Amino acid sequence: MTALLACHWQPARLVRRAVPTANRFLHHQVDTLTLAELLGTTNLRKRTPEDYKVLREIYTSFERYNSVGNDIQLTLKERTANDMIMCEKKREYEKGIMDPTQFAPGYHIFKVLDKLRESPLFHMLQKMPKGGALKVIDTSITSLDWVIQLTYRENLWVCTTDNCCHIQEFRFSKEKPKESAGKGGEWQTMEELREFRGEENLKKYLLTRLSMYPLTSFTTNAHAWKHLMGIFYLLQGLLRYADVWGDYFYRALKEFYADGVQYIEIRSLVPQLYCLDGSRLPGRVAVEIYRDRLRQFKDENPGFIGCKLIYANLRNVEPNVVAKYVKECTELNKEFPSFVIGFDLVGQEDKEHQLSRYVPELLKLPDHIDFYFHAGQTNWYGSHVDENLIDAILLGSKRICHGYTITKHPILMNLAKYLNIALEVCPVANQVLQLGSDYRNHPAATLIAENVPMVISSANPALWRAKPLSHDFYMAFLGIAPMNADLKFLKRTAKNSLRFSSLKDEGKAKGMLKWKKEWDEWIDQIVEGKLKLDKKGSSKKKSTPKTPKK
Amino acid sequence: MTALLACHWQPARLVRRAVPTANRFLHHQVDTLTLAELLGTTNLRKRTPEDYKVLREIYTSFERYNSVGNDIQLTLKERTANDMIMCEKKREYEKGIMDPTQFAPGYHIFKVLDKLRESPLFHMLQKMPKGGALKVIDTSITSLDWVIQLTYRENLWVCTTDNCCHIQEFRFSKEKPKESAGKGGEWQTMEELREFRGEENLKKYLLTRLSMYPLTSFTTNAHAWKHLMGIFYLLQGLLRYADVWGDYFYRALKEFYADGVQYIEIRSLVPQLYCLDGSRLPGRVAVEIYRDRLRQFKDENPGFIGCKLIYANLRNVEPNVVAKYVKECTELNKEFPSFVIGFDLVGQEDKEHQLSRYVPELLKLPDHIDFYFHAGQTNWYGSHVDENLIDAILLGSKRICHGYTITKHPILMNLAKYLNIALEVCPVANQVLQLGSDYRNHPAATLIAENVPMVISSANPALWRAKPLSHDFYMAFLGIAPMNADLKFLKRTAKNSLRFSSLKDEGKAKGMLKWKKEWDEWIDQIVEGKLKLDKKGSSKKKSTPKTPKK
Repeated sequence: MTALLACHWQPARLVRRAVPTANRFLHHQVDTLTLAELLGTTNLRKRTPEDYKVLREIYTSFERYNSVGNDIQLTLKERTANDMIMCEKKREYEKGIMDPTQFAPGYHIFKVLDKLRESPLFHMLQKMPKGGALKVIDTSITSLDWVIQLTYRENLWVCTTDNCCHIQEFRFSKEKPKESAGKGGEWQTMEELREFRGEENLKKYLLTRLSMYPLTSFTTNAHAWKHLMGIFYLLQGLLRYADVWGDYFYRALKEFYADGVQYIEIRSLVPQLYCLDGSRLPGRVAVEIYRDRLRQFKDENPGFIGCKLIYANLRNVEPNVVAKYVKECTELNKEFPSFVIGFDLVGQEDKEHQLSRYVPELLKLPDHIDFYFHAGQTNWYGSHVDENLIDAILLGSKRICHGYTITKHPILMNLAKYLNIALEVCPVANQVLQLGSDYRNHPAATLIAENVPMVISSANPALWRAKPLSHDFYMAFLGIAPMNADLKFLKRTAKNSLRFSSLKDEGKAKGMLKWKKEWDEWIDQIVEGKLKLDKKGSSKKKSTPKTPKK
Repeated sequence: MTALLACHWQPARLVRRAVPTANRFLHHQVDTLTLAELLGTTNLRKRTPEDYKVLREIYTSFERYNSVGNDIQLTLKERTANDMIMCEKKREYEKGIMDPTQFAPGYHIFKVLDKLRESPLFHMLQKMPKGGALKVIDTSITSLDWVIQLTYRENLWVCTTDNCCHIQEFRFSKEKPKESAGKGGEWQTMEELREFRGEENLKKYLLTRLSMYPLTSFTTNAHAWKHLMGIFYLLQGLLRYADVWGDYFYRALKEFYADGVQYIEIRSLVPQLYCLDGSRLPGRVAVEIYRDRLRQFKDENPGFIGCKLIYANLRNVEPNVVAKYVKECTELNKEFPSFVIGFDLVGQEDKEHQLSRYVPELLKLPDHIDFYFHAGQTNWYGSHVDENLIDAILLGSKRICHGYTITKHPILMNLAKYLNIALEVCPVANQVLQLGSDYRNHPAATLIAENVPMVISSANPALWRAKPLSHDFYMAFLGIAPMNADLKFLKRTAKNSLRFSSLKDEGKAKGMLKWKKEWDEWIDQIVEGKLKLDKKGSSKKKSTPKTPKK
């Protein structure tokens, strides 16, 4: 602190003038209590305006000193890049203060998604090497355009109701399927349906049916969750087909990498895939396919760091089922020790059982497999729902997914900080699932202010047609973080995503090198003006992203 | 902490069993760090389910121990009342978790205001002696029904545009006024307008024109503020008339007292009132009228504690104008030393100058007149707007009005706690002015969790047709506080409103006695079942409240 003050002015003289006790700033590590004592022992009204100015500067330096990214030293080139980034950030911010209707983070993502293409700041963030995406669900991460292309594959059947208006289920099959999980549906081939409804119409329908669009506001988060689960159900028929499973994953890796993500930890239910004849494959096959496609992708893209899998099954079950999950996860970890590395339970927390119900079963998981629990994804306070945060921490969770309500539990928040448990913050998912509306009110602002470890992730970006990670970064950087959060914040956040990953020390060091290489290239591009938008969004491609050439 | 644990179980044996280091709970004052060290030095995964249970209980006791109101001891009778209150609270809460569309604090106040009449919890809170309302603006606190009655008084002229469809200005005058502040308006008598538009129609129009209805969502808070300022402007012509000024205030005292408020601190611009001949009276007259009507009201209602005035003029001015404010406030305080006791600057913070701009002028205010600054009424983070919080605290503000954004500044939040600066939280005003939508996301939850001093107030309840303080209490108790916040929370909050008031020690002691008397009566009424709603809202009167008989 002393050194910090010294950079700005000659502290000894000025601070002593400010208030007699202020010179303790010069001899001690300053903490809030010292500052409080300093203020508490003075009559704040008996100060001259000059003294006041000094004290105010002390405070703002102190706040700056505690901010996220303050530990980062920027190179000369990074400082130049920072000026350019902050110029664009301030432009958007100031336009927003003048006229809040112009401030994208004040709106629902669906209303501003298209407009963001014209944002020079978004464009820069999109190209930024963001490190890892540590919280994504494996069946909601590949763009819907690509998923719709899937429906042109051979042997696809579709079960519809309401005179073909509503698609209930997909199935790849040699013959017409006999049964359907829904009621009153009729099976036909996808070709027949496409002919009946018209190609363009059907495409439009699927873009809506497989996403959370067009509703920007559901009545409640319960309603939003129901809709979300409906999408996942429909996707099952497409994605759990053994021939598709690996392609979807491979495509996801491609799209994430193109969006500046070099490392991924996916949560997966690890389903039993099905074959054309209706037979089912054991869960391990789904994992094996992932591992093989990952190897292929890494061979083709040496800049990519890797991918790990967190076994994450549905939480709305009896304890004996959780015991089965634990057993399956343990077996998968034995077979794929460096790939299946964690355990979680997923699903709408508000409606389902508490983590505490499963403690005896959960404690049976071998302790080299880490917990990465979803907890506190709610805005209820002091209910059975946010109590999951207590259990996540007491069970030794390595990270916490969402933790939206943790700022209402300062003791837990401090524990997370002390125990280095990073929160996986997914701003856009929280908005789409109706936890909050305006990004400026997202509780992660308090996490940033308190310097609680956090990473930014995207959960199910494909379901809101967002980029794999860029929209979440944009909303976090512009809407949640303070106005003066700059390249240091971005760098710290990107580095955190590797630091708090499940990579072992050596893997982290290697990963950090790969990230650093791309980071430096990005900084070069900014400084050389290569990431400037020529005119409104023209330098940026609208649709399918490409893997950057190495 | 030790004592606390001892109430629940035999700690020595159980805690020692839980984890070897847990016995430090028995010898030390437990703080977060101790808990963190305890967790950090153990392998949390190597625990038996029984040990886990104990550790979890330690944590929850710890959280309970730190909660608002934990210092309150309930009497036997209060405990019975508490059970009855919590029964109703839990009913509403659990209904909400099952079906969030049934949870009132998830909605805009305009959508649920009428429905709340049927809520047994609201009914109980309405009757609760709430202590003081420390943040209300003097011209927006009396019910609109009463204000509309004002328009039947003699000599009232009205200036309209758009073929009498839009009322631009009111004026009491013997003769037809010549000039108007707006453009293109025509003056006529109120009788003429009433005849032309029809009495019922006009009444309906006024109910909307003088309130923030019917819009539940403006585009932005800037839009909402513009609308709000328009209402204040229109009210000027009615309320600044010398013959009305005192009546409006007197009526406000009546309505607040009937709503369980025994003490008020009003913020006032202290305007120059006008007379029927158009002449203006000096500011001191407005204050004198208040003081005299207050004396009358206190004589008639010995249970009422009192009212004080905080001089609060508009902040969108040059420093020399603030210097004039300081001078006027100083003079008023000289003449009314026990009534004019504080200073503030009001208006939309986002658009206007920072407090820091006025430091030299503000420091000239004699230090026996306290500052009660509006600050941080925004959801911008790290902008010039929330910096007002720094200045409010460094200038020695006795309380902070709103401080909506303070949870993003943990150092300031800790300073407020350490220096006993209470935050005046106005939940409904924050929603209507578009800072947030769902009460469950209101940042005051973090204030409660951190045990930062706070009081609940209502700012401008008449403009949203809310009860003087009951709706804010209801939203805070059900929507913002944790589910288990109970009568202890309510009692602490009510007591805080006197504790953090500007009353001197003797006044506080006397006030507390008056409050205690009504509190005990309220507890009796609950326990005796007198506050139960017979059927849907039937025991509660719908319209004008009556002053309780003493």
